[in-house]
Amino acid sequence: MYEYPESLENLIESLRKLPSVGRKSAQRLALHIVSMDRDKLSSFIESFKEAGDKIHKCKNCGNLTEEDICPICRDLNRDDSVICVVEDVTNLLSIEKSGFFKGKYYVLNGLISPGGMISPDDIGVDGFIDRVDRDGVKEVIFAISPTLEGETTMLFLKEVLKNRDIKITRIASGIPVGGNLEYYDDVTLMKALEERRQI
Amino acid sequence: MYEYPESLENLIESLRKLPSVGRKSAQRLALHIVSMDRDKLSSFIESFKEAGDKIHKCKNCGNLTEEDICPICRDLNRDDSVICVVEDVTNLLSIEKSGFFKGKYYVLNGLISPGGMISPDDIGVDGFIDRVDRDGVKEVIFAISPTLEGETTMLFLKEVLKNRDIKITRIASGIPVGGNLEYYDDVTLMKALEERRQI
Repeated sequence: MYEYPESLENLIESLRKLPSVGRKSAQRLALHIVSMDRDKLSSFIESFKEAGDKIHKCKNCGNLTEEDICPICRDLNRDDSVICVVEDVTNLLSIEKSGFFKGKYYVLNGLISPGGMISPDDIGVDGFIDRVDRDGVKEVIFAISPTLEGETTMLFLKEVLKNRDIKITRIASGIPVGGNLEYYDDVTLMKALEERRQI
Repeated sequence: MYEYPESLENLIESLRKLPSVGRKSAQRLALHIVSMDRDKLSSFIESFKEAGDKIHKCKNCGNLTEEDICPICRDLNRDDSVICVVEDVTNLLSIEKSGFFKGKYYVLNGLISPGGMISPDDIGVDGFIDRVDRDGVKEVIFAISPTLEGETTMLFLKEVLKNRDIKITRIASGIPVGGNLEYYDDVTLMKALEERRQI
């Protein structure tokens, strides 16, 4: 049977390894890429190389940065004693965009999977504990998705921190601002009721 | 406001230029890419370079190939006098997968847009006519999507071919095999009725 030329097939297979890219998307992307003019393709490839060379994890918090320590950790105007724990860098950026939080972060390397596929070691719990002890942290805020993995991870970290004099909080569960009650499930509604606030 | 480091931001912007990749997908892809280990990233980048260097259009039909003339055009067992016209290489491969067609192809560079943004010149009509005349083609089959652009393109090509002694056909419109009638629109149903066959 006729097939794509080998180098095109290899490119398609490379692209398929990316998250949420199936065979059809990979084909479409590959055909677009080989149709780029040479200058565009060079600068496209260059952006991969440069990011791959320059970007690494901040030694303090796990955020992605071009330096040893990221700008957030270096910022003297931010409060060292409050650490917001997030599951990945995307969530860190979302919180930064809201502009509300003035403490520091710790970026986990994903979440603990209850099935045991991803362990506390994998997500970097040791680094987190070191950080908490070193910086004299007074409050740890979990800004972690309220999924099975998220709950498991929060439970585990809470247990690890239990003999320390630290306030442990988690972001509120409830109805998103602007959301219509009828579209959310029972558990979300129950949480929203439970965590009701006086106004 | 805090932002991603420059090289990461550049990578995200590069990825956003790919078809069907929005800001959020580009972010997710970029974070995955900078988290790859160095060997994986190198071979990933290599697959882009190699495909970009090796792949170009077949001089005869426009198919993508690593040689001057693609394997389909070189195949002496295929019928030169029947040309199947497709809008892109993906569609050529779909037809090849069905294994039914034993003629040759001509791959257009997209479809004519009725608004005039994409002209007959853009899609390579001249090359198509040259090919038809040179190879003594007896039948041209349009395997082109029955969309507005597809219909415009077929109409135009039919007009161009009209004084030549060539049979012009198009693939049937109708209900997909296994499809349920109730899910298809009136025009598809009408076409399916119109093009009914005796059994």
